[in-house]
Amino acid sequence: MIKVVIIGAGNVATHLYQSFSKSKQLDVIQVFNRNKQHLYFVEDPTKRVSSLEAIQEADLYLIAIRDEAIEEIAEKLDSKNGIVAHTSGSQPLTILSKFENYGVFYPLQTFSKNKAVNFREIPLCLEANSEKNLNFLKKIASRISDRVFEVNSDQRKALHVSAVFINNFSNHLFTLAADFCKKEELPFDILRPLIKETVNKLESLDPYSAQTGPALRNDQKTIAAHLEMLDEDRKKIYTILTESIQNLHGKKL
Amino acid sequence: MIKVVIIGAGNVATHLYQSFSKSKQLDVIQVFNRNKQHLYFVEDPTKRVSSLEAIQEADLYLIAIRDEAIEEIAEKLDSKNGIVAHTSGSQPLTILSKFENYGVFYPLQTFSKNKAVNFREIPLCLEANSEKNLNFLKKIASRISDRVFEVNSDQRKALHVSAVFINNFSNHLFTLAADFCKKEELPFDILRPLIKETVNKLESLDPYSAQTGPALRNDQKTIAAHLEMLDEDRKKIYTILTESIQNLHGKKL
Repeated sequence: MIKVVIIGAGNVATHLYQSFSKSKQLDVIQVFNRNKQHLYFVEDPTKRVSSLEAIQEADLYLIAIRDEAIEEIAEKLDSKNGIVAHTSGSQPLTILSKFENYGVFYPLQTFSKNKAVNFREIPLCLEANSEKNLNFLKKIASRISDRVFEVNSDQRKALHVSAVFINNFSNHLFTLAADFCKKEELPFDILRPLIKETVNKLESLDPYSAQTGPALRNDQKTIAAHLEMLDEDRKKIYTILTESIQNLHGKKL
Repeated sequence: MIKVVIIGAGNVATHLYQSFSKSKQLDVIQVFNRNKQHLYFVEDPTKRVSSLEAIQEADLYLIAIRDEAIEEIAEKLDSKNGIVAHTSGSQPLTILSKFENYGVFYPLQTFSKNKAVNFREIPLCLEANSEKNLNFLKKIASRISDRVFEVNSDQRKALHVSAVFINNFSNHLFTLAADFCKKEELPFDILRPLIKETVNKLESLDPYSAQTGPALRNDQKTIAAHLEMLDEDRKKIYTILTESIQNLHGKKL
């Protein structure tokens, strides 16, 4: 059994804990958080620890906390024989260089506390300070996911900012649209099939080829009519994204 | 059998033709397009017509052409006994007021020529110049879709601009992210699970509650690091959308 300690109690830590717990080859021996009450998701209370000194020997220590706190935790954590890895998309590998064995174990996914995810489909992006450690992380990663990638720090940064465009920003566009429809007394449900098809299309088309709409067609009349309906905030977004579509697809405003 | 004539040969016309052809209660007697060669999708060549004068008596004439051309076609089309309806999200009902019976039959979906869609799931947004005509359109719509909505012209306009935010703009964000990853030699496939989950989440959460990311957390360090990696075009988009998320969720930059 590979012994794992998880450090953190947020969305990523919770989902990793749940996924690791399902694997017979992995044993989550402890989960650390300063406030023990946030560790209610750990079934066995003896595995909940709130002091770094109480952390036992393990093969892997996974630091799954917010980016700003990683450095501090790494500083306070005693040197370990096992691999110490963080799960951040934006932090460099070297933030953990005080340890002998260290790496990155970045799940490229959006997590919400009350929404189950299928970890087998989540890309796990790995990096380590040695070939041996990388192979060890690969071994663990393949126990929980079918999509294991070796990704260097620059590539990981690119993925992280891409994830913001894909998830955070498009979700915000959905929010703005839902809000706009609500004002016209239209249910969000009426928009769901369109959201679904936007994504389903990408199973057979790449997003560049899937592009449609007034910006692509350079349909100035529709663009003007749309702008007239929008508040200042949405108007700015509409204009910038319309320009960007036209730039990329070689149209002129 | 309800007799239908479809006017147009684009994506919407093609998909409507295919969907109508499957219903035993609907008979597409003709499809019109100025250039007959674009009507190759109509199996029976005798149903392909390229002159408006050749259009026969029908119960419904569906004008499924680009917005700018609707007025001209309506002008040239002889007055009809059947209902004349257009399929545009942005054009008013009254653009067809020269006819005695007229309406709107707007499918809220994104269509690509080579991508089949399940019409039963597509919201059909209907409007008509009389209760009787509205009921007739409802009867036809329910033959091909399980989601039939009565939507007035203002609401339809709101849906149309919402569709741009949901489909066109988020698809463009996917394109920018894919392009950015390509430069880092990362395959688009690595982003697919995130795109899927962005949408799957909305089955159990509304988009406002599903929002995550550095903008929502007001994580200035990550935001600054992201901006540094982006070109001018993406930087503008990133800034505007980050501001908009923070405005909506009540955070301060």
